[in-house]
Amino acid sequence: MTNTAPKSVAWRGNVDGCLVLLDQTKLPGECVFLDCLDVPTVWEAIKQLRVRGAPAIGIAAAYGVCVAVRESMTGQWNWGQFYKTAQEAIDYLATSRPTAVNLFWALQRMERKLKSLDGSASEVAAQELLAEASAIHAEDIAMCHAIGRAGAELLTDGGVLTHCNTGGLATSEYGTALSVLFTAHDQGKKLNVYADETRPLLQGARLTAWELMQHGVPVTLITDSMAAQVMREGKVQAVIIGADRITSRGDAANKIGSYGLAILAKYHRIPFYVAAPSSTFDFKMESGADIPIEQRSAEEITEPFGKRIAPVGVPTYNPAFDVTPAELITALITEKGVIQPVTKENIAATLQ
Amino acid sequence: MTNTAPKSVAWRGNVDGCLVLLDQTKLPGECVFLDCLDVPTVWEAIKQLRVRGAPAIGIAAAYGVCVAVRESMTGQWNWGQFYKTAQEAIDYLATSRPTAVNLFWALQRMERKLKSLDGSASEVAAQELLAEASAIHAEDIAMCHAIGRAGAELLTDGGVLTHCNTGGLATSEYGTALSVLFTAHDQGKKLNVYADETRPLLQGARLTAWELMQHGVPVTLITDSMAAQVMREGKVQAVIIGADRITSRGDAANKIGSYGLAILAKYHRIPFYVAAPSSTFDFKMESGADIPIEQRSAEEITEPFGKRIAPVGVPTYNPAFDVTPAELITALITEKGVIQPVTKENIAATLQ
Repeated sequence: MTNTAPKSVAWRGNVDGCLVLLDQTKLPGECVFLDCLDVPTVWEAIKQLRVRGAPAIGIAAAYGVCVAVRESMTGQWNWGQFYKTAQEAIDYLATSRPTAVNLFWALQRMERKLKSLDGSASEVAAQELLAEASAIHAEDIAMCHAIGRAGAELLTDGGVLTHCNTGGLATSEYGTALSVLFTAHDQGKKLNVYADETRPLLQGARLTAWELMQHGVPVTLITDSMAAQVMREGKVQAVIIGADRITSRGDAANKIGSYGLAILAKYHRIPFYVAAPSSTFDFKMESGADIPIEQRSAEEITEPFGKRIAPVGVPTYNPAFDVTPAELITALITEKGVIQPVTKENIAATLQ
Repeated sequence: MTNTAPKSVAWRGNVDGCLVLLDQTKLPGECVFLDCLDVPTVWEAIKQLRVRGAPAIGIAAAYGVCVAVRESMTGQWNWGQFYKTAQEAIDYLATSRPTAVNLFWALQRMERKLKSLDGSASEVAAQELLAEASAIHAEDIAMCHAIGRAGAELLTDGGVLTHCNTGGLATSEYGTALSVLFTAHDQGKKLNVYADETRPLLQGARLTAWELMQHGVPVTLITDSMAAQVMREGKVQAVIIGADRITSRGDAANKIGSYGLAILAKYHRIPFYVAAPSSTFDFKMESGADIPIEQRSAEEITEPFGKRIAPVGVPTYNPAFDVTPAELITALITEKGVIQPVTKENIAATLQ
């Protein structure tokens, strides 16, 4: 099966075409697509979470470099102009969000490709950059399915708890953690997915519940504060989430609330799985304590959906991510296989 | 010091007066008072959480019986009419919410008083019932301060995490868990309170943050999913919450999310305190597994703030409370002293 939901990221047309993003801030109420005709629009879309999910951000940023050079088709750019435009786009897009390593990974791939094209005619170079972004995109689709197949082996009939959104919207196709659930469902396993709503931005309520319903997978929406009770009642066989960055020893940064879920799962003796592609691993970093954690604005907490729900002037603390130490993760599910137990040696043996 | 915030529950006038409730569903945006001139209005106010918090519900219900018989002043009621009206109000108000035992405790006190008045003239009986409800109210105020003094001994300068609302709005004066914080603050201790927003109904964001700000206690608002991260960063010395019912062995029902916080506190070796008056204890029940847990409507999750944030038709699970087993509670803070460790014997020795 393929995911029939609207695509989160797509390139329309040839090198003079444009990046089309599904504006996820409008879901599930409206299905609005955003044509990105310049780099600031791509940057803003990443920053404002119109496109989100570590793999999808990487793909969008890669195509963002193609957006930067699309005008080279209509002008008479020399290599110096072309190179400067592309390199500036790469540097600028890298400032959009700090935590997900896939963003930097994808931009570094585009940078390496750019440098390899030194002196090329701009129409050739633009074609090559689009081919590279398309390759990242195609690899992501294959990755999603490989993660799904690897992870589905770990599940039987029953409940599964997930957090945030790790589906087709967070990637280009089946997702990471959700790909495991879609694949298990496609195999005939009878799942019931408990989806945390995932405050403050409600990716679970708005996106995960929507994707699972579109795919026909039974889903029950809960608030984040209900996860412990669902575990206590024996309703879930496993917790499965995605990741925005994983260090060489297996510490995993993911949406705020993930670390707490890992502790709750350990207390209830429920396996805790993290599903992510190899591009999410940052082998230059060993300890999760070194992962930069994005702090976001107070309004996400105090004014969800434009309505103020807290006193004016109340101080807030709004880290977008937390880090789950490797010790709390039962297994990592990657496109190259399941890593269990989570150790530096096992990670290196599977991925490097 | 006394709490200068608007009173959650008050009786205006004499026996022919009325119950006045601060409509907490409108806070912090609007400060609206609701005159309760008949029993269905009181029932609806409890059901819809216009008045909430276990002690405040008990007081409101006690005054609700006085609302029922206020018309006896203007008519020529015989004892049979008076008794039937009061007893029906007691039975009806007891159906408003199932979990908080203070509701039943207060109504049983009113029922005992009613029965003791057998054959009285209705104007005398109405006066006696109002005196009983006023006594419950006055005892609650004294209880709040006694809990505050007992619990403040357990705190030093530093951060404290709390959940839901346990302040003057949940009681008639200083609150239970918040009374501990108000009292410690009044004593000159430098606190910073992390208030969980408490989805689905956001009592933490709407009420706790507002009460603490009114009182000048530094507060930082977080989503429920951020509690583990705040603990990991060493920002809190203790977690302190209230309770809606505590069994004879010390299992405590409280707002959904409390049980998870207790597990997170244990993992981080942070004390976990439950503050509640003796009226919250249900000595007829030993195991927390026997406490009835109210299930509330899906719309609280799917349409917060009047705006739909989840797909139409998504199934939800919405338990209003969970139960923290005694083993996870460091101490119980009551108006009769601190109970530590939490055992059936220690509870009985302090309260019975």
